[in-house]
Amino acid sequence: MNQATETYLQVGSAGISAKRFFTFAEPPHELVLESGARLGPVTVAYETWGRLTSARDNAVLVCHAFSGDSHAAGFSPDDQPGAKPGWWDSLIGPGKGLDTNRYFVICANILGSCSGSTGPSSINPATGTPYGPEFPMVTIGDMVETQRALLDHLGIDKLHGVIGGSVGGMQVLEWCVRYPQRVRAAIPVATTMRHSALAIAFNEVARQAIMTDPRWQRGNYYDSEAPHLGLAVARMIGHVTYLSDEALRRKFGRRLQDRDNFSYGLDVDFQVESYLRHQGSKFVRRFDANSLLYITKAADYFDLVDRKEPSRSIRDLAGAATRFLVISYTSDWLYPTYQSKELVKALKRVGLNVSFCEIEADCGHDAFLIPDKRLGELVGGFLGSVHRY
Amino acid sequence: MNQATETYLQVGSAGISAKRFFTFAEPPHELVLESGARLGPVTVAYETWGRLTSARDNAVLVCHAFSGDSHAAGFSPDDQPGAKPGWWDSLIGPGKGLDTNRYFVICANILGSCSGSTGPSSINPATGTPYGPEFPMVTIGDMVETQRALLDHLGIDKLHGVIGGSVGGMQVLEWCVRYPQRVRAAIPVATTMRHSALAIAFNEVARQAIMTDPRWQRGNYYDSEAPHLGLAVARMIGHVTYLSDEALRRKFGRRLQDRDNFSYGLDVDFQVESYLRHQGSKFVRRFDANSLLYITKAADYFDLVDRKEPSRSIRDLAGAATRFLVISYTSDWLYPTYQSKELVKALKRVGLNVSFCEIEADCGHDAFLIPDKRLGELVGGFLGSVHRY
Repeated sequence: MNQATETYLQVGSAGISAKRFFTFAEPPHELVLESGARLGPVTVAYETWGRLTSARDNAVLVCHAFSGDSHAAGFSPDDQPGAKPGWWDSLIGPGKGLDTNRYFVICANILGSCSGSTGPSSINPATGTPYGPEFPMVTIGDMVETQRALLDHLGIDKLHGVIGGSVGGMQVLEWCVRYPQRVRAAIPVATTMRHSALAIAFNEVARQAIMTDPRWQRGNYYDSEAPHLGLAVARMIGHVTYLSDEALRRKFGRRLQDRDNFSYGLDVDFQVESYLRHQGSKFVRRFDANSLLYITKAADYFDLVDRKEPSRSIRDLAGAATRFLVISYTSDWLYPTYQSKELVKALKRVGLNVSFCEIEADCGHDAFLIPDKRLGELVGGFLGSVHRY
Repeated sequence: MNQATETYLQVGSAGISAKRFFTFAEPPHELVLESGARLGPVTVAYETWGRLTSARDNAVLVCHAFSGDSHAAGFSPDDQPGAKPGWWDSLIGPGKGLDTNRYFVICANILGSCSGSTGPSSINPATGTPYGPEFPMVTIGDMVETQRALLDHLGIDKLHGVIGGSVGGMQVLEWCVRYPQRVRAAIPVATTMRHSALAIAFNEVARQAIMTDPRWQRGNYYDSEAPHLGLAVARMIGHVTYLSDEALRRKFGRRLQDRDNFSYGLDVDFQVESYLRHQGSKFVRRFDANSLLYITKAADYFDLVDRKEPSRSIRDLAGAATRFLVISYTSDWLYPTYQSKELVKALKRVGLNVSFCEIEADCGHDAFLIPDKRLGELVGGFLGSVHRY
């Protein structure tokens, strides 16, 4: 079998998975959020790949990043021809890093998002209209609580592993801090244990781009036009931070778009401009502006070091049996390697078993989403080495 | 005299300078721009410090960055009590790097800007209303042509030096390429000889923030409300790129603004958010949105390497007697040191006399504007060493 055919067969080899929904915190119950606010009912959209063993000891939870969804691998039943497989298809499937012949892989849309789980665009049962700004602010911890409820529902007491990049990596760490006894192996990728001032700054600018769009209307836009212009600018800001100087140079350099000369006007001149505008306009078709506000704020709040009681911090992991594989990328300047090293140090300081790997890649923060067999090998090897005690 | 007193006396020691205006390309003449468009009349607002020798051989031109103005040092006659001195006051004055006892220092507001020189907010004599989008696109070369016209007017044939940071540094390089025989010493600071894809990307996002503000009205907003919301977001984007991860950590970290706890809302939580919002709202009081669009585009067009004939490129400097001091800053990620090194190599390749210094500073691109005696010493020493042939 030649290389090309093999690649073709491997793409989407996780098969077809349908989105499923789990609803909890139904009346008279409610989910008590970290802020003290209450929310219910709460729906979690999720997909799974592989089979859960009868001992229920082979589950791996995949936590998605800020704009991701539950469709991490393979195809959906309602995919159009030519559809791309899920966002981490390079990692999930038979024989891949998250080997679906061995593991039961779960990915759930995060609380506050807009791809099936409850978020600001969901219907508020109290009013029959979308929550909008009435949706309570959520935290990474609240996202983890919805995942925990889902695992309880699926009868999974202990995760073999939990893995995620970026905001997904924050969920991985929060899982370990909240439920160390429920996680054997944790793989935080391209992430941080406390959101930096630089990362907060970029998130704040993105939020301002949305909140200054007159169509945002303080979040009450669901019965009128959405703030797509502001959302597109916000996405463009985010997108630049996911790339690197090197990647942009290699991918675009100063190449002009559709012309031999400068326009000497405000039109697109450079390919990189066209690419960013395309990213912005593509994003607004699939993402809700309020969800961006809520999820970026949750990321900004994330800090496992300096936490008020009774919230558990990284120090409370002392004595945990969870094993860690921390992964960073050389050209990631949003969550740079030094922040992963700080995490490694903090984990080692409380006596945990930590492996660390910095992957050389020139594509910036986005590197964790770009197919790369080194990630698959690291993840597969690490998960395979962790005993199912 | 103790340190504090000395510092106090040195601030604003360049004295009081009044803005002056020079107008050229008056009918029937026009300035032919690099795009081929014609513009006239053209006014240049400028200030000077020190005295021009009778031999007219001690002039140093200071080129300002994207949002700067001609007020580089000292105070203005119409300053309010408590006003800050000019933007490079730490460098310009008696005994400073640009020693006004020795040099006649000139700084002119760039073409396309909004602080006295002709730009999109200036009155179009053909219509009696502001140019708005009818203003022709200008280039760094066009800015240099207006500075050259000013020098001709002042009777200065040869500059002892030309210095500038960022977009000001691009003007320095353009000066050397266009008029090598008119520049003895050139000091490009924190700049590049070709605008990178990353820098273009950030500029494009800033432009999109303005152009998607409904008040922008395709640039025709001068008789209504200005697109201040978009302009503020654009400034915030720019501002983050001028700083560094380290500077933000040191200056703000994760400190909260005016509260002990998270707001769990979309209000300001962190000091860095408040700082950015403040920078944005302060900027709209002094800067024109169209000027931002035009000047960022001029920067994006800047490329001294890959130029179509008959434009001169860096290679055409071969044989020039101009001496160079190239300065970069360690934590500048907008115009990183490797780009200054590329410039140094390109200059050396054509046989020029080049000195290079990378200054260790953790404040990012902004470092060149922050008072630092190392810059003054380098600049003073270098200018003093260049013979007034």
